[in-house]
Amino acid sequence: MARVVVEVMPKPEILDPQGKAISGGLSRLGFTGFGEVRQGKRFELEVDGDITDDVLAQAREAAEKLLSNPVIENVVSVHALEDA
Amino acid sequence: MARVVVEVMPKPEILDPQGKAISGGLSRLGFTGFGEVRQGKRFELEVDGDITDDVLAQAREAAEKLLSNPVIENVVSVHALEDA
Repeated sequence: MARVVVEVMPKPEILDPQGKAISGGLSRLGFTGFGEVRQGKRFELEVDGDITDDVLAQAREAAEKLLSNPVIENVVSVHALEDA
Repeated sequence: MARVVVEVMPKPEILDPQGKAISGGLSRLGFTGFGEVRQGKRFELEVDGDITDDVLAQAREAAEKLLSNPVIENVVSVHALEDA
């Protein structure tokens, strides 16, 4: 079954306390070399049929309307899942 | 600043009520053509310096140990962010 992936991240100017907590956790576990961490969302939408430009446009609209909060989040990617 | 992206999704056999709710929302908003929806997580880890194989291996280990719950989630991708 074909799938579309939608990726949503908090806007850079928005505080991300969960990301901060993860960043602290990484240091405590001995993972050095990483700085700031941001946590966002990844959606997989099953598509009935083939992934056409129209399907991708619909997914992009759904991403803006339902899958993200445009006040605090950016849709960073809408793409077909290659290995579906 | 270079970034590594870690993507985590619920395992296929795990129920995803949030995804189910989104799927219902899509139908109600008139987005037809989509079936099942699954919601996972996307992390961006800032890297001090260049993204080497060693950094990616560290990120992969962190993804398994801290960023995902291996009982219910799969790490589906660990990759460098191209446009960083």
